Order: sequence, then structure tokens, then C-alpha cells
Amino acid sequence: MRKISIIGLESLPDVRPGDNIAELIVEAAGREGVGIEDGDVIVVAQKIVSKAEGLIVDLKDVKPSERAIELAKRTGKDARFVELVLRESSHVLKADESTIIVDRGGFVCINAGIDRSNVGGEARFSLLPSDPDESARRIAKDILRLTGKRVFVIVSDTSSRPLRQGQVDFAIGLAGLNPFRDYRGKRDLYGYMLRVKRVAFADELASAAELVIGQGDEGIPVAIIRGVNVEESNSTAKELTISRELDLFSGAV
Amino acid sequence: MRKISIIGLESLPDVRPGDNIAELIVEAAGREGVGIEDGDVIVVAQKIVSKAEGLIVDLKDVKPSERAIELAKRTGKDARFVELVLRESSHVLKADESTIIVDRGGFVCINAGIDRSNVGGEARFSLLPSDPDESARRIAKDILRLTGKRVFVIVSDTSSRPLRQGQVDFAIGLAGLNPFRDYRGKRDLYGYMLRVKRVAFADELASAAELVIGQGDEGIPVAIIRGVNVEESNSTAKELTISRELDLFSGAV
Repeated sequence: MRKISIIGLESLPDVRPGDNIAELIVEAAGREGVGIEDGDVIVVAQKIVSKAEGLIVDLKDVKPSERAIELAKRTGKDARFVELVLRESSHVLKADESTIIVDRGGFVCINAGIDRSNVGGEARFSLLPSDPDESARRIAKDILRLTGKRVFVIVSDTSSRPLRQGQVDFAIGLAGLNPFRDYRGKRDLYGYMLRVKRVAFADELASAAELVIGQGDEGIPVAIIRGVNVEESNSTAKELTISRELDLFSGAV
Repeated sequence: MRKISIIGLESLPDVRPGDNIAELIVEAAGREGVGIEDGDVIVVAQKIVSKAEGLIVDLKDVKPSERAIELAKRTGKDARFVELVLRESSHVLKADESTIIVDRGGFVCINAGIDRSNVGGEARFSLLPSDPDESARRIAKDILRLTGKRVFVIVSDTSSRPLRQGQVDFAIGLAGLNPFRDYRGKRDLYGYMLRVKRVAFADELASAAELVIGQGDEGIPVAIIRGVNVEESNSTAKELTISRELDLFSGAV
């Protein structure tokens, strides 16, 4: 029997700019009797990382560029919102009435990951952390300092995906873990050598954590995954992105 | 504190044509002291479902059509393998040296989901179950008969996906559960109404199960997810597929 536990922390306070996420996690884990253990994978929803890093923008403070005004007309969106999306993107892949899809340094995402849920205020939006790997590393380092425990950290974000209905969580920042479990070159039950199998383990961990990370009025922004066999690495979440040339699905979506 | 457990069953025997998967699961869960409980989500790897249903094909028994021979030349693959892919597909979306991507009744997948890992024999391949929802329902029904427990069943498959490196597990068959957790119309922490959020919960459950479902020489083809709040429904996995028209990413991959 192999067992993994996914534990959602329910007592984190509403996060404010300047808050130390690691401290809030350690306090909540202590309060809830969960504690922090060596080898825990701590999955943190992007939203509270952005809040702690002060990445909440009010549209009234945004001046749209000419390009944003033009794209806003074409997509039927608020030009100030479009301005934010453009500032947060390397380039625009698609823009129509339904959606703006952009490339954000390799990450392809809708509206550059900008959204207004759980932020407060009708015109307030959260931006993604500028360097989610660095955010994850800082949380892991602070947890080590506070508890003496070596943990892995994933910053996760919820996103739509091609070819499927509904959203799932993905890893957008990593600290300490190899995002892949690579079976290539290994043998199956019958000795056949696997040639393709390389599981995006960090994305699966993010999706698993989402099972307890509530949205809406639930407010569980952190999950601890305990008992999972994780490979140590200095990898970044950038390794989960793929070029158009290597993407098997290019032209098929 | 909210807690979910993912338990991998390690003692299932090698599955053979005609085996009753539900019996094997109930026996292994008993042997390993895990048992079966009401509300368990039982995730079963497609491979053992296909094996039990006798969906293993040896290429020596396959006669390629002219169309398969032509496509085999273009893709550099074995014409008999291409013949199997064509038989299992509604239509071909893309075919080149790297890959054949097909539509399988709404499910877009590489090589129609045909592969040869954990099957045994150099030229033996497993096909996907012809009706994975029916396969899942049969397992759930048999478990109810054997144990008196009402469980949810997901048949999962590992697949590459657009825009990201590596593979994750998806739900290709469902019994008893709503594949979505729909937050649309609900309010966030600050009372803002969520308009888009609809989580593909069944896919996240499949990915979570994959964390323990080993491949290679590990052989854990079944995971029990316990403690998760699942909504009952007569849904099918088909609801997780999306039309090209509704797919926000159409033309952007």
C-alpha cells in the first residue's frame, strides 16, 4: 500500500501586501495540528503570492496605450485591462471577442493570468508573480529558516487548457523539485523499454492540491502533500513550457 | 483541516482477458488492509481495463488498408500500426513523422491512445476500451455487488497535452460523478461573482491518482482516493471534450 495525503490549510488569514507567506503557512500548520515535515510538497495558490507581493492593480490607475485601445475595440474588453495584459506578455497569440491568449515568457495563458477573483473591489485585478520560481524558492527558504524542515514548494495557477472542458491547476513556480518523473529508458512489467513516458509530475501535484484548495467562499489557498516521492532538483517551472516546434499538437488545435 | 488520501494498491495480479477488475480491486484492497468505503473514488488505469476486455492486438494479425499504407509512408510508421490507429479514430487531425493525432469521438489523442507499454511482446498493442464510461460503470456496479459500497470510478489514461512538456493523466471514463466542480455564479471571499471558474475535477482526480499509479516496473494500476467531496451525477467523460468552436485555444497552438 502506498499512500499520499493532501492536507488543505483552512486557517490562513486574508493575505496582505508585505505578508510573509512562509510564516502564515507555518503558523496555520501548527494551529491545525498538521505541522511541517521534511519532504512535504507545499502547494501555494498564485493568488496569495501575488497579494503578498503587492501585485494587485486597480484599473483606475492604468493608462491604456494606443495599442491597448485598438485591441480593446477588437475584443470588447476594457482598454485598461487590455493594457495590463499587454504589459504582462511577450506577445499576443490570439485576440477575439472570447479571449486574449498571450505568451508570457514561454507560458501560454489567457489574459496573461490576470484575474479579479478573491482580490476585492470591482476594478481590482491580480497580476501573476513576476518570477514565480523565485517566489517559491523564497517560501521554501523561509520555511527552512522557521522550522528546520526542507520542503518542496509549488506555486500553482488555475487555467483553461486546449482540447478539454474546464480548468485544472498547473505549476507556474517551483522550488527544489524535478517537475518530471522520467520513465524513458526504463523497462515496463514485461521488460519492454519505455520510449516516451515522462510525466509532468509538478502539474499533477498542482492538480492534486486543487482538490482541496477551495475557491469561492472556501478560501483554502495552501495544501500540503505528504508522503510523495519527489526527486530533488534545481529545476524551474519554465522547463514545463514547450516550443511550438516541439509541441506535437501544433496545428491540431 | 481538510484531508484527502490517495492510496495505491500494490498487490493486483497481472490482469488477463476475462478477468473481473472489480473482484481484483476488492481482493487487493482487503489484502492490503485498505478496504472499500462509501464515497471512495477508484481510479483505474486504462491499461488493465483494456487487458481485461481483451483489447490487446498483435500486429501480425492486422492487414493494413491502402489508406494505412499511404499514411505509414508519410509518417514512417508500421502500416499495421497505422491501420489500428485509423480503425480506432473518427478522423485524422494531423499526421507527420513525429505523430498521428486523431479525433476519437470527441477525444483528441495521439495514436488513438494505442500503445505497447505493459502489454508484453514486441508487436502487441493495447487499444482503448470501446466505451470507457461503460467500463467504469461496470466496475462500480460490481464493487457495489461485492461489497455493498457505493463508489465512484474513473478510468484514466496518460497523455501528452498541448502547450506543456510531459504527460499527465486524464479521465476517459466515469461512473457516478460529476466531472466538474462548477463555481460559476458563486461568490468569492469578497462577494465578487465568479463567471468562468469550472474545474475539471475528474481530470484532477486522475492526475492525483497518477502520483501513486506507477508505470515502469512498479505496477500500481489502481488508486483509491478517499475523503474527497464528490458530486453525484450520471455524467460521462464525453462532457470533458470540447468542440473546436468552443475551444478558446483554437488556432493558438
